[in-house]
Amino acid sequence: MAVKLSPPDPASLHPVPGIELGVAMAGIKKPGRKDLLVMRLAPGAAVAGVFTRNRFCAAPVTLARKHLKNEVRALVVNTGNANAGTGRDGLRRALAVCKAVSEKIRVKASQVLPFSTGVIMEPLPVDRISAALSGLKDGTWLDAAEAIMTTDTVPKAASRKIRLSGGEATVTGIAKGAGMIRPDMATMLGFVATDAKLPQAALNGMVKRAADRSFNCATVDGDTSTNDSFVLIATGSGVEARSDKDRKLLEQAILEVSQFLAQAIIRDGEGATKFVTVTVERGRSEAECRKIAYAIAHSPLVKTAFFASDPNLGRILAAIGYAGVEDLDTSKVDLYIDAVRVARGGGRDPAYREEQGVRAMREPEFTVRAVLNRGKAAATVWTCDLSFEYVRINAEYRT
Amino acid sequence: MAVKLSPPDPASLHPVPGIELGVAMAGIKKPGRKDLLVMRLAPGAAVAGVFTRNRFCAAPVTLARKHLKNEVRALVVNTGNANAGTGRDGLRRALAVCKAVSEKIRVKASQVLPFSTGVIMEPLPVDRISAALSGLKDGTWLDAAEAIMTTDTVPKAASRKIRLSGGEATVTGIAKGAGMIRPDMATMLGFVATDAKLPQAALNGMVKRAADRSFNCATVDGDTSTNDSFVLIATGSGVEARSDKDRKLLEQAILEVSQFLAQAIIRDGEGATKFVTVTVERGRSEAECRKIAYAIAHSPLVKTAFFASDPNLGRILAAIGYAGVEDLDTSKVDLYIDAVRVARGGGRDPAYREEQGVRAMREPEFTVRAVLNRGKAAATVWTCDLSFEYVRINAEYRT
Repeated sequence: MAVKLSPPDPASLHPVPGIELGVAMAGIKKPGRKDLLVMRLAPGAAVAGVFTRNRFCAAPVTLARKHLKNEVRALVVNTGNANAGTGRDGLRRALAVCKAVSEKIRVKASQVLPFSTGVIMEPLPVDRISAALSGLKDGTWLDAAEAIMTTDTVPKAASRKIRLSGGEATVTGIAKGAGMIRPDMATMLGFVATDAKLPQAALNGMVKRAADRSFNCATVDGDTSTNDSFVLIATGSGVEARSDKDRKLLEQAILEVSQFLAQAIIRDGEGATKFVTVTVERGRSEAECRKIAYAIAHSPLVKTAFFASDPNLGRILAAIGYAGVEDLDTSKVDLYIDAVRVARGGGRDPAYREEQGVRAMREPEFTVRAVLNRGKAAATVWTCDLSFEYVRINAEYRT
Repeated sequence: MAVKLSPPDPASLHPVPGIELGVAMAGIKKPGRKDLLVMRLAPGAAVAGVFTRNRFCAAPVTLARKHLKNEVRALVVNTGNANAGTGRDGLRRALAVCKAVSEKIRVKASQVLPFSTGVIMEPLPVDRISAALSGLKDGTWLDAAEAIMTTDTVPKAASRKIRLSGGEATVTGIAKGAGMIRPDMATMLGFVATDAKLPQAALNGMVKRAADRSFNCATVDGDTSTNDSFVLIATGSGVEARSDKDRKLLEQAILEVSQFLAQAIIRDGEGATKFVTVTVERGRSEAECRKIAYAIAHSPLVKTAFFASDPNLGRILAAIGYAGVEDLDTSKVDLYIDAVRVARGGGRDPAYREEQGVRAMREPEFTVRAVLNRGKAAATVWTCDLSFEYVRINAEYRT
């Protein structure tokens, strides 16, 4: 694989006071791998989340949304089974898992947020999860990142320390996801936690802004999952983010961790050999720039051209053209691969030589930049290529 | 390949009085293959067309739309080069081709409709096309179908004879396309001709209705081409379609030929091993049914599951969920593969056994049927699977 994602250095992942992590092997899909994570929160932690807008949202998403209104004391995450497309029975099973966790740690079931990821439309094996809870082992954030992997090849985690006016604060997060990635509110699963103390309202704003500028800019295959969830936790066990400046510093750290995780999901995209940043500039609105960026990032023809390092760049123009911006004047559109101008005024740049395009696209990471020349808005999306390996992984996922 | 498309039997393709076909090898992309077609029309022929809504529509599309206002005397089609994303220079080149044809057959350049298909953003080699015009050879409809192929593996043509009140009439058509197929008005290129006599207004209605019920129901990869064009010709050299009954018979024959051609494009879809009919029923509107049908037909995850004959059918529920029907009650959705009910009331049907799904999906052709149970509308889309071969073809298209 040309694009590289290294596993996180365990020493770089700072513990977050106010959170205890427990992992187990429940054998949900396959035996012998970590597939269950429990995050236990100190009393008084503030929690905010954004969730998938897929109408077939999974049972745990429905329940997590509901339980978020209470004081949250624990999150429970299983892989190997998404508990989606499972109807009423799925809700019962998700609640049973909350109950099992709540009994173990002596809180209410309604104080537990459940999360599931894996195959859709199969019944969740509650008994195996309940049984595994008694064998929970204390874990690090790296263990936690490993426990939520499905087709991910590398655990995804990032951490920052920042200095607020009252002292040092920590932001640490984990995420999973490699396919069925086109988050619409959030990614498959992402959890970012800080020990800083923050009011709930501030946290609610931060989770939305962080999602919009991180997970909501990422796409592997355009398939919005039934289970996308992104949760931000402020345990309040550490220093208070008092001033506006404190909050800005904290939000910046949260954004950096979230962006790192979102980009890690693309770098580890199913079969990905390239990490491509698609930027659309000088549009009339951010919405139209995003439309065009996603049309480019989702086109199977563009993605196979990325895979081949083949600057068959007319395919990008075609995607711009069908993105649904009805009044787009194509004769004003310029197109760049990194610094190479490929098209100018809607047609091939006379100075462009194909060798330049090939050279730029052979890099494991490059930027496609479309300049619409009709306004001041811009948008960026991160994506990967479409390779043989994507087909192999998804044709063989269950077998 | 599991899905089979046989080449048309030449004897089944009836000539259309009032149309003369000429083909040539112009060496546009590669030497030694038919890549140029001229269709010469008798005076007084009526012609109607529908074209791509891609904003980056090709220069020939712009010109064909314009020339359609005149009495059309010829169509000229080249493969190997789409003359799209070529700006003003592309328009000049398309006009130069019209002019070369018009001089050869002594009509005006504005009476010639140009069509191009092939690689985008490369200058059209007008000189080679002009030179080849002098070597045009009389051709059959099969020759014509062969002359417009690009990545097609099989020429696509169909023909019908029908009896109108005044006598027999013929409908014969050809089409090309295998990738960049998600027609938005029409397919890559489709031409259907009859010798019947029809007023222009009637023809205009028929071309739209035929496109909507044939090419506009087909998708390979969701990439709407810059060059989609579907043209219907009534030469008037044969009998007149006088009565309402005549016109209905004629329209039915046109629709049958168009549907055959549209389905042939999917059967010959790049890398296709399966032909899948996606039907969404009992929706509130045709528009919402089409939205859901296209979400299923475009999902890379669903398409790789088709390829693997893997009834990983939760992926279909996920696609239904993110199709953008905001008020969809998923607890009412039923899902079938052919006669097998897989999901009922939004969850797995308790009676469903996975062997049934595998058996149905192993067939080279099957139907995915989603029943929304919220109205009376329905829509159907034809699609194919996403295979290794699709990636290979599109990663190697130009190299």
